[in-house]
Order: sequence, then C-alpha cells, then structure tokens
Amino acid sequence: MTASVGFIGLGIMGRPMAANLLAAGHELTVFNRSPGPMRALEEQGARPAQSAEEAAASADVVITMLPDSPQVTEVVAGPGGVLEGARSGALLIDMSTISPVAAVELWERARGAGCELLDAPVSGGDVGAREGTLSIMVGGEADAVRRARPLFDVLGQTIVHVGGPGAGQVVKACNQMVVALNIGAVGEALVLASKAGVDPALVLDALGGGLAANRVMEVKRDNFLEREFTPGFKVDLHCKDLGIAQAAARDYGASLPLTATVTELMQALRLSGRGDQDHSALLTVLEGLSGVQA
Amino acid sequence: MTASVGFIGLGIMGRPMAANLLAAGHELTVFNRSPGPMRALEEQGARPAQSAEEAAASADVVITMLPDSPQVTEVVAGPGGVLEGARSGALLIDMSTISPVAAVELWERARGAGCELLDAPVSGGDVGAREGTLSIMVGGEADAVRRARPLFDVLGQTIVHVGGPGAGQVVKACNQMVVALNIGAVGEALVLASKAGVDPALVLDALGGGLAANRVMEVKRDNFLEREFTPGFKVDLHCKDLGIAQAAARDYGASLPLTATVTELMQALRLSGRGDQDHSALLTVLEGLSGVQA
Repeated sequence: MTASVGFIGLGIMGRPMAANLLAAGHELTVFNRSPGPMRALEEQGARPAQSAEEAAASADVVITMLPDSPQVTEVVAGPGGVLEGARSGALLIDMSTISPVAAVELWERARGAGCELLDAPVSGGDVGAREGTLSIMVGGEADAVRRARPLFDVLGQTIVHVGGPGAGQVVKACNQMVVALNIGAVGEALVLASKAGVDPALVLDALGGGLAANRVMEVKRDNFLEREFTPGFKVDLHCKDLGIAQAAARDYGASLPLTATVTELMQALRLSGRGDQDHSALLTVLEGLSGVQA
Repeated sequence: MTASVGFIGLGIMGRPMAANLLAAGHELTVFNRSPGPMRALEEQGARPAQSAEEAAASADVVITMLPDSPQVTEVVAGPGGVLEGARSGALLIDMSTISPVAAVELWERARGAGCELLDAPVSGGDVGAREGTLSIMVGGEADAVRRARPLFDVLGQTIVHVGGPGAGQVVKACNQMVVALNIGAVGEALVLASKAGVDPALVLDALGGGLAANRVMEVKRDNFLEREFTPGFKVDLHCKDLGIAQAAARDYGASLPLTATVTELMQALRLSGRGDQDHSALLTVLEGLSGVQA
C-alpha cells in the first residue's frame, strides 16, 4: 500500500531517504529551505511545496529530517509549520536527532492538534540512508508504529520500537555516547601502543579476537591506520549529539562521567578547527595530549 | 612433535591450560606454590616438581602463569627460580599479565642466562583456557615465536605476534583498557535509559544493529539485564590490569584521560567490597552515582 508522504528536510540524510520512498512507489510532496535539493527530487517524481504547511496539507504521513531541536520545533509547531497544514489524524514522524524532552513536547502538541507523532532517529549515516539500511530507534505509541512500519521498512534494516514518546531520542543519545566512547577507547589504546613502539594494525588485529572487539574498530580501521578523516560522520554533529546526551542526563537525572570526558575531548577537536572531519579524528586529540607527532 | 614442558602456576587459568597440553601429548613437569592443583594434574600424567628450578631443569619450554609482575620476576629470576634450573637454550614463555617494562627486563635477564623468553598474555578467561580458545598476544623474537607455535595452537585460537619483547604485554594492557571502557560506555547508556524510563533490553537490541555494537554488550548482556555478577572476570583482576596500563602509560609517556576515569570507577567498585564480582558490576557504581536503586 502506498502512502501520500510530506517530506521536509532534504540534506545529506533526507535527500536519499526521500528518493528511496519515491522509488518504492510512495507519493511525495517535498519541502526544503533552499530549493536546490527539491529540484533534484522533482525530476524523480516528487511534488515541490512552498512551505512546511503546504507539504503537510495533502499528506497521510509527514516526515521531518532536520539538524536539531530548534529547527524541528519551528518546522512542526511554528507559524506556517506542519501542524497548521496537517489533516486531522495525520502521522508525523520526526527522524532528526533532537532532545528527548523536545520530542515529548512535540508529541503533546501534535496530539493537541489531532495528529500522531513518532520520534524515530536513525544511525547508519549517509551510506545507510542511500542503501536503505538505517537503524531506526522508534519512540511513540504502538498504533502509530504499525502505521509507519511500511515506510520504515523502505528506509531501514534494524527497526526497534524502544518505548513511548521520546524513547527513540533517548536511545539515540545512548548510541552516540557508546560510539564516542568506543572511538576514545580505541584511540587511547593506539596512542599507548604507538608510544611503546607497537604496530597499531597488529593491536587492532589482536583486540578484534576477544572481548575488546567492537564495530568502531572494524568500520573505522582504515581511518585510524591511514589517518584519513574524510567524513563519514562529522565531528560537529557528534558534538551536537553529545550535547543532547548531556542535556538529557540533566533532565532525567543521570551522572555520566565517561561521557563528560569524551564530550570534552570531542569539543577540543571541534575547537581546533576540525569540526568537518570524521569523528574518528578524535585519535588526533588523544595523540596531541601525549605529544605524538602525526 | 611433543615437547618437554615445565608449567608453573596452576591457578584458575594455568590448571586447564596445563591439562590441555597434557591431553595434546606433551610431557609436563608442574610446579605450584600450594600442592593441591599439582596432585590433580599428576593424576592426568604430569610429574610434580618441588620448585620452579626443578620444573625447569629437564624442560625444553617453561611456561609461567602467575598473578602479577612481582611473582613472575621472583619465580623466573629469583633464588630457586627458573633461570637457575633452565638448560641453556630453553624457551621461557610468560603467559601472565604483567607490566611491559618488567617483561622487557625479564627478557634481558633470560638472554643473559642463555635462554629465550616470550611475553604471551592471554584473553578469554577461564572458559577460553578450558576450551583452548584463548586469544594470545605475543611479544618477542620471531624464532622463539615459531618454536612456541605448536604449544600456542593447543592453548588458543587467535594468536598474534604483535612485536618485540614487551609488545604482548602492551597489547594486553590496550585490551583491558578497551574492555573496561566498553563496560563503562554500555553502563552509562543503561543508566541514562533507565532514568528516562526506557527498557534496557531494547536499548541493547537497538545499539547492537549499528556502529555502537560491541562484544561486551553481547557477552555481558545477561549480566547487565539480570544483574547477575558471578565472575567471569573479577573486578580485582581488572583493577590490577588497569594499574598496569596506567603504569605503562607513565613509562612510555602517554596521557589516557578516559582510561584514568574508568580506572577510578573500577577502583570504587573494588573499594565498595565487590572485588570478587564480575567486572560488568561496574554498572552498579554508575547507577550509584545517579541514585538508581538496584
């Protein structure tokens, strides 16, 4: 069954996701602040809209894929936004990575306007978005999740309904904490090994055989060994996501000492002017602390 | 080809390793400070010795599996030790987890006595020791590694020659850092999720599908979810290993901020009287910081 979908936010993630939905036969109305990406999708059969309100007006489902909480709140609940255009009973799916508290507030405002809303942030990056293999962490009500399922199946591979409103964003924050700490852990191991004169490639080989094994070590192996930090996932975005995790920790009352430390290290990388590099470049900050010359 | 092996240190790791070498047809002379474990291996065909010196006297290869640097240094280089008994040309393999600097010193002393020495610490725990599936991180000279290979093949599965003398211990320290940080990362994620009311099992399901995936999350899943902390790998031992990593960092000149933080947390767990629990109990320290009631 195909749906009429409004898709708002055609960046590095949103554009290939929208293209996959079009290719699967869904009817798409798209909106983006700058018009360039809309034209490309128009050629693939999407209808361009002049505003978020217009993109929502004829849609059964409205998907948002935007940078952060303020943009999503503005586009969904602001003037000329989704809730002004959406039909009663429409399903809103926010796939951006935003604050869980903001996600719960939006769910309440959507409900007040007679709409359903899911928070459904993703991991897997632009490659996962293009290939339709994203991991999707879904927070919201079971009925709404069932309704969204055919669209999620086009966009992703691992789809887990993790709880009620906001839960998807909580789990995404957890995900970004664990990824950052894995990069930091592997980075410190490689710094110690290099100071002791041990070949980093052999360290990764040996650690991959036991309890220390992790996906970061596999996926970012060449980044670490070749010192090649083309993104991938940008440091700026990881800093933003760690900021969300720390804000969530304050909101829900959690003390996260390791996350605090790795956030400072990731911030130091950003402040050194390398915010547009891949997050595996955290290695270079750790090397700097130990006086390792790149 | 079978070898005449002296095996010293029949603890939770050494005893099943010695039994596997016996089962593979090697001729074993065993020594342990307390005689109980020697009697059990005697029934399986090992010859008991009265001292480390005696265990080494007729051996082509002498394996040590002891708690820490002081014990290994004493048993290998002390009075009545291996180097007093060993034949010229004997191969010493220390499979204990000790300081890399101590390992290099022992290699020099062995060489001075006309022997070869490898540092070959393992990971995989008592289960890996029993099943012969240990990961072995080997430091030393290529000729000695070739000579040891048939014995390593009996004891382990992933055998990586990571560099010269001491390199095996450096990589083992790296391994223990990454494992501790993974436990800490997953622990902080579970604390945030639980404070936000999200089911920890679903967090692990969702994170396992992406870049956050790690072996700790799989292997320790039931420990985290069932709050079952029977070792496994004891907190006391992980504290000892993190102490080795920190000492190595000072010796080789590395600054390891994340390792420092997780070491303090693991120490706090030990100081709370839970040194004999599994290291996944680090979760309970993180819960305590956030006021989570177990």
